[in-house]
Order: sequence, then structure tokens, then C-alpha cells
Amino acid sequence: MQHCPPAVSWAGDAVEIVDQRLLPDELRVRRLGTTAEVIEAISTLAVRGAPAIGICAAFGVVLALDELRRDGATGLDADVLGAICRRIQGARPTAVNLSWAVGRVHAAAITTSRLDEARERAASQAQAILDQDRASCERIGRLGAAALEEAHSLMTHCNTGRLVSAGRGTALGVVYAKAEAGHPVRVLACEARPLLQGARLTMWELVRAGIPATLIVDGAAGIAMQRRLVDAVIVGADRIAANGDTANKIGTLNLAVLAEKFGVPFYVAAPLSSFDLACPAGESIAIEERDGEEVRGFRGRASAPDGVQTWNPAFDVTPGALVRGFITEVGVLVPPFDHRVASGGSPWLR
Amino acid sequence: MQHCPPAVSWAGDAVEIVDQRLLPDELRVRRLGTTAEVIEAISTLAVRGAPAIGICAAFGVVLALDELRRDGATGLDADVLGAICRRIQGARPTAVNLSWAVGRVHAAAITTSRLDEARERAASQAQAILDQDRASCERIGRLGAAALEEAHSLMTHCNTGRLVSAGRGTALGVVYAKAEAGHPVRVLACEARPLLQGARLTMWELVRAGIPATLIVDGAAGIAMQRRLVDAVIVGADRIAANGDTANKIGTLNLAVLAEKFGVPFYVAAPLSSFDLACPAGESIAIEERDGEEVRGFRGRASAPDGVQTWNPAFDVTPGALVRGFITEVGVLVPPFDHRVASGGSPWLR
Repeated sequence: MQHCPPAVSWAGDAVEIVDQRLLPDELRVRRLGTTAEVIEAISTLAVRGAPAIGICAAFGVVLALDELRRDGATGLDADVLGAICRRIQGARPTAVNLSWAVGRVHAAAITTSRLDEARERAASQAQAILDQDRASCERIGRLGAAALEEAHSLMTHCNTGRLVSAGRGTALGVVYAKAEAGHPVRVLACEARPLLQGARLTMWELVRAGIPATLIVDGAAGIAMQRRLVDAVIVGADRIAANGDTANKIGTLNLAVLAEKFGVPFYVAAPLSSFDLACPAGESIAIEERDGEEVRGFRGRASAPDGVQTWNPAFDVTPGALVRGFITEVGVLVPPFDHRVASGGSPWLR
Repeated sequence: MQHCPPAVSWAGDAVEIVDQRLLPDELRVRRLGTTAEVIEAISTLAVRGAPAIGICAAFGVVLALDELRRDGATGLDADVLGAICRRIQGARPTAVNLSWAVGRVHAAAITTSRLDEARERAASQAQAILDQDRASCERIGRLGAAALEEAHSLMTHCNTGRLVSAGRGTALGVVYAKAEAGHPVRVLACEARPLLQGARLTMWELVRAGIPATLIVDGAAGIAMQRRLVDAVIVGADRIAANGDTANKIGTLNLAVLAEKFGVPFYVAAPLSSFDLACPAGESIAIEERDGEEVRGFRGRASAPDGVQTWNPAFDVTPGALVRGFITEVGVLVPPFDHRVASGGSPWLR
């Protein structure tokens, strides 16, 4: 098996990411040395996937503190740091991991008024988030592989593997865990228009990992389930509300409704950091709408006439009732979620 | 309103088609002077859409008889003609209009043993099929506009307009009829990966016609219905079985299942020539599987790693039970279909 470098890692003075916009054509690691670069990388999807943008944003706060130090400050100005954190959190609205991670690092930093101390506490917290993510992926994979032991053919959407995390990923982490355990597994990957993360990233990961995978257009999900080619559907999540309503990559709702119709179990794999119990239901989740150029073309190749009107929501919300189980690092859960979820994954941090 | 030239027409010695592979970049009319060119145009999707390929194939038989005449024959060799007809019918397997139209022209031709007479009879029959199609589109539009008078926002899939017929199309013909009647109408067009006929062709037609239209990726159909942005879904058909099971462009099944889930009425608009009562149910419909390169990229722009495994069914089958009504030239039907359908549209031919 040949794996890719970590999607996101910390070099002590910069975040290093795999630039996911260039895949599968080119594997390039990019260095983000400033908060502005972190924000730009998140908003342009150079780094993407709920856990990965959380980690990247966490270190973005550390970089902000470094910049304040370079500017000559020695004391921590909480107002300045708060404004920077809000700017990072605003880079993308839907994945809760982003605001969760920034909130944690911010909270750690403001326990002191000394800038150098704040920087160290922030760095420790960011590193803890990264370590927690890697450990969560490991457990999600193991628990998911056990829960889905009988499911050999898994349909998935978008990309939820090594590229979205510091570890081996969420939904695709379950696939990796099954393969590592020597269980038969094959993947039917939906391409995930408009940005084709399924075609570009999931297929790239699975080919490198030597796991059998077949690529389909999103429209072929229905016939695949109708023909019983799918034992289970497993996807990731960007934000899970208290009632189980799940925001995830556009097209996930389609898969969940098709799975219900054709009797295919539908699972969400996500770390506790993707749960947002402050959000009672899907209606409260802000859905990012992105530039219409993504819809009017295909990797720069125009498909529609110039300038036609588009609607480009980047996510949709799957009703919690359609989800058979939420595969997390503490087990396969169903709503109403208990205190382990309410703690936002903190058992793993402390 | 600015409309495109006829998708398919007869020039007396050649079929003229709009080459749909080049749209929306270029509007080019191509002349098909031989049966081989007709077969090539159909199988490469230069001409596409069930009614249009039926018409094109019908004239392909006429061109075959012309070629036999040019080769010096004066008598009709029924075996030779039969073999040619089977070759034309084999150009694409799913749309029944293709074999229906070729069968009609063949039947007309073999009523005589004189080649020149057979050619004239074939040409009359092919012209009748073209005229019938134009008239059917007209009536489908009118009847559909009446049936969907209260539905202002219509979701559609692939392309079913002027480009798929000698007239104004089937599902999109209903949109045109609503607009002509001065009724409010706007279209939510699914792009229809892999070949993006929704983005390339439907949006091109609707922009030229001045009808408000919004393009979405296929994965966004669910959220659009969930948010009540769609009053009805209307699609075309490539083959409709006796029980109403409907083969149509890949992704149609997804829309039908979503429409059922979210309580949106789902209609199929198709001429009687798309019904195949010899086919009891969807399981008997041959589903064309096309080259994986269509899934691995778009117009030469790769999205997936080279050579990854794909599955590329060009059509899927929507259960008849999910269809609220079949809008045809003789009315809005539901299965079991009556004698008007059994006659395969012949009332319009004689």
C-alpha cells in the first residue's frame, strides 16, 4: 500500500497541507506560514474536509499569535485575537469543526495575558486537536469495520479519507480499517459534482491503497442501489445537529433517500467534533453557496453557456431519521445523543 | 425568441442534424449522406434523444436504399435490407423509437420488390414519422401545459427540447407550450453527468428561448425538492414498458425517488413511439453501458486518475408506480395503457 503524505501537519512555524485542488494531477505539499494563507487555503478548498479544516484553522490561530509577536507585542490583546478567530471561523460556514477547533484554541490562549505563554498554550491545544483527530479516525475505522462487517460493497460520496484528516479519515477510514483487517471490501465512489472530490481524491486514495474501487456519476447511485450492488452507504459529515440531521457534501441527501427507498443501510462516520448540539435541527445549519462557475464548468472546461444562472449549494441536510447509525470514536450512536457527544469530544483531549 | 435549427431534417438526399457534441460552443449543422454516417452519428451522440434518433434512423433506411440503387441494383433484396436495418437498430440499444422507426420504414419498403418503389415508400414513411413527431410534440406540449397549469417551477433532466425531435420536444416542449400560452414558468435544469446534456443543451435552448432557467448539479436535486423549490418534475423517456417502468437518462430514477419522498409530482412526457408494450416491465429493458472515459472526465479534461475502474450505465429505469402521469399526444395516461398506446402511435401516421 502506498499512502499520501498527511493532508495537514504542523511544522513548528507553518501548517503544511496537500493542495487538494491539484489532485489527482499533481501531489504538492504547500506551506502556510500566515493566518491569511490559512484562511485562503480553507476558503479555496486547497485544504478541505471537516476535520482537516478544523486542524488547519487551529494552527491558524497559533500563526496569528506568532504574527503578533513578530509585530513586537508581548501582551495578549484579547479583542485582537477574538477578531482574528472570527475571521478564521468565517472562512467556511458549514463545517462545525472549524469554529469548534478555533474556539478551543482561542479558549486555551486567553487563559493568560502573556503573548508567549498564550502562543504555547494555543500550540499545545492545536496539537492536541490534531492528535485527537488521528486517534478518532483510528477508532472510527475500527468501530465502523466491526459494525459493517457484513457489508462488503460500500457506496461513498465526496472524499472522507486520509485527505480530510490528520489520520486515515472518517467514512473512508472505515474502508481502510476493513481492508487492514483483511475483510473483503470494495467501494462504489460517487464523483461528487461540482468539484469532483470523489473522482479526484477518493479514487486517487483508493488506487494508491490498492483497494478495489469503481467510480460512478452521482446520477448512477439510484440504479446501483436498485440493482443491489451496494450493501451499505457510508458518508462523512460537516455538521450534525442534535436530532441527527446531517449537513454533508451536496448530493448526500439524494443518497440517503435512495438508500431508504431501496433498503440499503445508510451510515454517517464522523468524530464528535462534527456534532453541534447547540443546533437543534438541520434548518439551523448555514448552507454555504459557492460560485456558479463551479457548476458552469468542469475543471475549467465550460459545460454550460457563459453566464447562465446557477444554484450551487455546497452542502445539503440529510434528515437524522434516514441515518442508521453515526459511527464515532465512542461508538455507533443514534439520536438523542448522550453526554459523550455533548462534551464535544473532550474526553479525547484531556 | 431565438430558436435553433431543426435537430434533424431531411434534405432529399441526406439527413441534416445539429451536431450536439459541439454545443454550446458551436452550432454546426452536419450532413449525413450515407447509412454508415447515420449509424456513426447516432452511436457517438452527434444526434441524440429518443424521437430524433428514431427519425434519423428512419431516413438512414432510405439512404441505404439509395446506396443500393447507386450500386446498380433494381430489385429489392429483402435479406440485404433486413441486415442493414438490424445494423441501424443496433446503433443504440435503449431507446425504442430507434427500432420502432426502422421497423416501420422497413415494413413500408418490403411491400414491393422494385427498389425505386421501395425507396419512395420508405421515404414517405420516414417523412410521416418526422411529421408525426412534430405534431406529437405540439400536442404533448399543449396537453402537458394544461395538466401542469399550476406548476410554475419545473425540474427537468438531460435534454428533451427542440434538440431531441423534429418539433419542440417532449418534456421541454411542455415548458415551451407554457411559455407560449403566457403562463409563468421557470426551469431548474439538472446538468446530467456524464455528458452534461442539461448544462450544454437544455440551458442553451432555454437561454435562446428567453425562458428563466437555473442550472444545478445532479446532486442538488434533493435539496431543491426538500426546500420546495420544485412544483413538478418532468422528464422524457427512451422506452416505457407496459407497466409504466421508464428507461430514461441516468439519474432519472434518483429524481423520481426524491420526488416521491418530498411529495413532488413526477411526470414523463413522451410520444406513443416511446412505448414498448412488448416489454412487460423494466427488467426487460436493455441498458446501454458506455465508455468509462465519459465518467473519468469531460470533453478531454480528466477528473479521475488514469484508467480507474468505472461503471457507466447511460440510462436507468424508474418504476412506473413513481410516475404521476405519462404526457402523450393522446392525453395524460397511466398504466395499464389502452389500445391507443398499443397501436404505437399509428393513428398519427395514417
